[in-house]
Amino acid sequence: MRSNKLVVTGAGHVGSQVLTEALHMGLFGEIAVIDTNESVAVGEALDSLQATGAPHMAAIDVHSGGIEDYKNADVVICAAGPSIIPDPDDPTGRPDRSLVTTVNSKVIRQVMGDIASQTREAIVILITNPLDTMVYIAENEFGYPPDRVFGTGTMLDSTRLRQIIAAHCMVAPSSVQGYMMGEHGLTAFPVLSRLTVGGYRFDELPAVFPINPDLSADDIREEVVQAAYDVFNSKGWTNAGIAQSAVSLARTVMLDERAIHPVCSTLRGEYGHLDDVALSMPCIIGRNGIERRLPVELNAWESAHLETTIAQIRATMVEAGTPRVR
Amino acid sequence: MRSNKLVVTGAGHVGSQVLTEALHMGLFGEIAVIDTNESVAVGEALDSLQATGAPHMAAIDVHSGGIEDYKNADVVICAAGPSIIPDPDDPTGRPDRSLVTTVNSKVIRQVMGDIASQTREAIVILITNPLDTMVYIAENEFGYPPDRVFGTGTMLDSTRLRQIIAAHCMVAPSSVQGYMMGEHGLTAFPVLSRLTVGGYRFDELPAVFPINPDLSADDIREEVVQAAYDVFNSKGWTNAGIAQSAVSLARTVMLDERAIHPVCSTLRGEYGHLDDVALSMPCIIGRNGIERRLPVELNAWESAHLETTIAQIRATMVEAGTPRVR
Amino acid sequence: MRSNKLVVTGAGHVGSQVLTEALHMGLFGEIAVIDTNESVAVGEALDSLQATGAPHMAAIDVHSGGIEDYKNADVVICAAGPSIIPDPDDPTGRPDRSLVTTVNSKVIRQVMGDIASQTREAIVILITNPLDTMVYIAENEFGYPPDRVFGTGTMLDSTRLRQIIAAHCMVAPSSVQGYMMGEHGLTAFPVLSRLTVGGYRFDELPAVFPINPDLSADDIREEVVQAAYDVFNSKGWTNAGIAQSAVSLARTVMLDERAIHPVCSTLRGEYGHLDDVALSMPCIIGRNGIERRLPVELNAWESAHLETTIAQIRATMVEAGTPRVR
Amino acid sequence: MRSNKLVVTGAGHVGSQVLTEALHMGLFGEIAVIDTNESVAVGEALDSLQATGAPHMAAIDVHSGGIEDYKNADVVICAAGPSIIPDPDDPTGRPDRSLVTTVNSKVIRQVMGDIASQTREAIVILITNPLDTMVYIAENEFGYPPDRVFGTGTMLDSTRLRQIIAAHCMVAPSSVQGYMMGEHGLTAFPVLSRLTVGGYRFDELPAVFPINPDLSADDIREEVVQAAYDVFNSKGWTNAGIAQSAVSLARTVMLDERAIHPVCSTLRGEYGHLDDVALSMPCIIGRNGIERRLPVELNAWESAHLETTIAQIRATMVEAGTPRVR
Repeated sequence: MRSNKLVVTGAGHVGSQVLTEALHMGLFGEIAVIDTNESVAVGEALDSLQATGAPHMAAIDVHSGGIEDYKNADVVICAAGPSIIPDPDDPTGRPDRSLVTTVNSKVIRQVMGDIASQTREAIVILITNPLDTMVYIAENEFGYPPDRVFGTGTMLDSTRLRQIIAAHCMVAPSSVQGYMMGEHGLTAFPVLSRLTVGGYRFDELPAVFPINPDLSADDIREEVVQAAYDVFNSKGWTNAGIAQSAVSLARTVMLDERAIHPVCSTLRGEYGHLDDVALSMPCIIGRNGIERRLPVELNAWESAHLETTIAQIRATMVEAGTPRVR
Repeated sequence: MRSNKLVVTGAGHVGSQVLTEALHMGLFGEIAVIDTNESVAVGEALDSLQATGAPHMAAIDVHSGGIEDYKNADVVICAAGPSIIPDPDDPTGRPDRSLVTTVNSKVIRQVMGDIASQTREAIVILITNPLDTMVYIAENEFGYPPDRVFGTGTMLDSTRLRQIIAAHCMVAPSSVQGYMMGEHGLTAFPVLSRLTVGGYRFDELPAVFPINPDLSADDIREEVVQAAYDVFNSKGWTNAGIAQSAVSLARTVMLDERAIHPVCSTLRGEYGHLDDVALSMPCIIGRNGIERRLPVELNAWESAHLETTIAQIRATMVEAGTPRVR
Repeated sequence: MRSNKLVVTGAGHVGSQVLTEALHMGLFGEIAVIDTNESVAVGEALDSLQATGAPHMAAIDVHSGGIEDYKNADVVICAAGPSIIPDPDDPTGRPDRSLVTTVNSKVIRQVMGDIASQTREAIVILITNPLDTMVYIAENEFGYPPDRVFGTGTMLDSTRLRQIIAAHCMVAPSSVQGYMMGEHGLTAFPVLSRLTVGGYRFDELPAVFPINPDLSADDIREEVVQAAYDVFNSKGWTNAGIAQSAVSLARTVMLDERAIHPVCSTLRGEYGHLDDVALSMPCIIGRNGIERRLPVELNAWESAHLETTIAQIRATMVEAGTPRVR
Repeated sequence: MRSNKLVVTGAGHVGSQVLTEALHMGLFGEIAVIDTNESVAVGEALDSLQATGAPHMAAIDVHSGGIEDYKNADVVICAAGPSIIPDPDDPTGRPDRSLVTTVNSKVIRQVMGDIASQTREAIVILITNPLDTMVYIAENEFGYPPDRVFGTGTMLDSTRLRQIIAAHCMVAPSSVQGYMMGEHGLTAFPVLSRLTVGGYRFDELPAVFPINPDLSADDIREEVVQAAYDVFNSKGWTNAGIAQSAVSLARTVMLDERAIHPVCSTLRGEYGHLDDVALSMPCIIGRNGIERRLPVELNAWESAHLETTIAQIRATMVEAGTPRVR
């Protein structure tokens, strides 16, 4: 018999943060770290392993690994590939995640090929950007059981949404329920028709909380998208929230929680799209990965943004040369 | 009435990891992040604040701050100042932490002056290297209540010691009790005369565990010191273990645990040294910081290493221009 | 300086469970246990104190206490007084919490008098039944700052509601947002007009989840109320959920989270009631206790049940001889 | 694929506390509760299940169960059978755990038969008293893989020892390393020759800490044994510490930690005893249960007490009719 096992692929800013979060969760007895820069994988694994000597830490077997580590993994979290970096010459201050499409398409094809060569059992959680296109590739090009691979998607965007709405209302983020859908990135949009704060619907908020009544759906969408760039342009990357999201999904899988999160997968007929785009929508997550997709009904503003986000994702997919994009 | 408050000073690799650990601990309702690079402080604080929107996270008020944030802080963790960086031209592969003595002496004098201008109540936990000299400066040049400022010291070296001994014995690190003393760095030494594994003394280990009987105190000392450089040379810095140590100390303070940890403070007569050197030895940590120093009796090997480490620390102190070094 | 302090008043099935939860939370460095049966207080405190010797446990100062312990308490959780007990001769199987009105009115007047004699600072969280009447007494008869004392109220009923809806929908309870209002007990009612599951409104659920479309608001109200009695009649009391609720509120207070929970307090004009009844409605909880009450708009069914529950609570209040009931 | 599964057998004061601890650990996605009083099993499971609707709780599938639940269990924790109860007519105030030998021998034979009829894989952790005799029966009468069944043993006694020594020294229990050996109960003895406090040996303590120098090994043994009865006589049972111990062992198993704990198993040659007695000594615990027994060398006082405790355990074994006792 063996202990629960996690593989973290990619040991950059995000992967190393995933490692930290996973170490604390105490759910995996073994964690393997894989990176094309083997030295970094060794360093990150060793740093975490040494930390298990600290008071209160569980004895978790953290080590750098190779593709054979996928074979008996329960969960793989993939943050491999380069991130976009702040560009002082970009007047928008918003370099698009699709800037790394070409390079990361190769990365994800390599990683997913490696994984698929070893197992069909592991639940694979992708973080690599541009996320939706990477998920599409991973889910459709390797014959991997489709619901066993998915992306963190707009879970992070949703985390930001809740924190921002909470700040406007001066309440705890845990009292805000709601999510973003679509692309993880520039065209993600909030599903305000289904957002609640302590049970109050979005249109009721100004009457109850100190939120500005003039704040529109566009304003909030803009604020959430900008929030990522505020962090990005200040520190050069973002990693705190995304690592939380990925590890939280890993726990949901391991405990077979059947929690609903907005994660990214290829549409199989939802919203009139069959196998031609991957995006984030609420899904039930359990021991088998995505147990069900839940295509919520959207209002007019949201439906329009859904079309926009699909167009944007498909443009990136073309760039990535995904075979099924017609 | 107010919530427990932490200030994290310095938002580099270590400070940002401290922030991550502190966010998870759920003991501080407010965390302020201060850095001379205000953009980085803003970015790190914002990244963590946004993460509080994730499922299961407490609503912690994380924000970038200024020196006025020290005024009502319960604990300050200081990781300010540059770290040493890997030097490919250094044939030893072991750049000394004292390489940053001059620059960090200025940093710590600035930070400690700021803190002392605002409060005498906060417990100040230093991480900045060369740690022992930084602690000496902080404790002796600002009239700050002496036991309320101390350094993480050899807590991290001890964490590595336990993990390494555990690996040799093939047991969990939590089953190893023991610590390193002296300088946090090249001349730290293990107090093997007081180390136990499941109650077995060090000299009994080879009869019981698969540890090599030829492994000497020198070998183990060497292995622990090298462990840090193995991480450092692989990933460019070390931060997982040290952040754990600092945050663990913060909890011990806040809960008034009176736990014993090897932390760094100025000797007040222990081992024949009065006010002329700061180093790590076991101390009882409680709500008032260092509640007591516990100068353990050492064997001959350990005593010799104590003298070596004191000489090394004092050499660094001279470089830092500490007034009391005679 | 001192550590965060909790007082647990009442060390029966519920109080001892509160103690267990609080010990794990690691937020209070000191916990005092008070019970009129001093032997039980001593035993419970000692059992928990001894447990702090276990691996991974923080050193928390748990001790039996006296009224002087209220003086510097940050939070008091009161579970004092007898509970109802299963009555085999009761054909309904639902002995009402008001059966202990007379005895517990005396208990709460004693406890609250003790508290008010020592402090005006502690946040007092009541669990004692019949809860709403006990809160009314505590809040209105002792000149205690009104928002600093409140009851766990329908937080537990809401916990059951979410678990039950989650089971019907085959999703995780964390994916259900919603609450019960009114009396903690027989007449509590779910605010289904504001309940969501993954963003889906209650009336949309049957189209998406395996929940029976014929399930009415009355059915669900009945099921939640019965859930308590299912536990009660099987094991003789209920304590797991309520202890969670109380300790979760204590954390929200200590971290100044401003989370929204359905807790019990005296109405100050909400729903047309001024100072004449205490019941549960969503409130923002922070370091000062109830920071705001949020009187949500209810639909017709809910409004009718609000009147029913108010009538029921006031009948109990009369029995308790609350002076302001007119 | 399935989630980690725990079975809790016996839902009395101890079993229900185990359930609470396990629910918080978040390591098991499924927990089955079995009790001969099915109503109590249903009530306890339901109370905990309802609690999963509370904020911050994971969605754990808690349910009452039958023997078929053993089939795919990862860990079974058995607290079945009646406990001793306080006896006002007993002038010693120390009713022996062996008072329930006859009844619990039957209980454990029933439970272990049930388990062995379903699986050879589950790690079985026994709590039922008199513990050592129950372990002997479970390990030797059912052909179950011997190292996969063991008892919490003197882990609880050791917890008390550490807390008591810590109190004498005015330090945190986590700074005390040491354990009790032998019978879980009246004749357990502390292995003071291997106890340390912050690295100080027992005989050094009075020179450093405020512990009374006249405190003998007998005094401490007596104090630890009495500590259990102090709780027992005050509240009627003890459950906080033992539940911690059992669940902590379950985690050590699931994460394959290889941590060293003093647990109870049949001697296989250690201390000159082959298959004729079960008692507690330090063991390495991992995914396969007891990975190794570590028979520490004892001093004269400890060796004498080892003989006493063996005699006591064997007397109880005779009463239980264990076939191999010669």
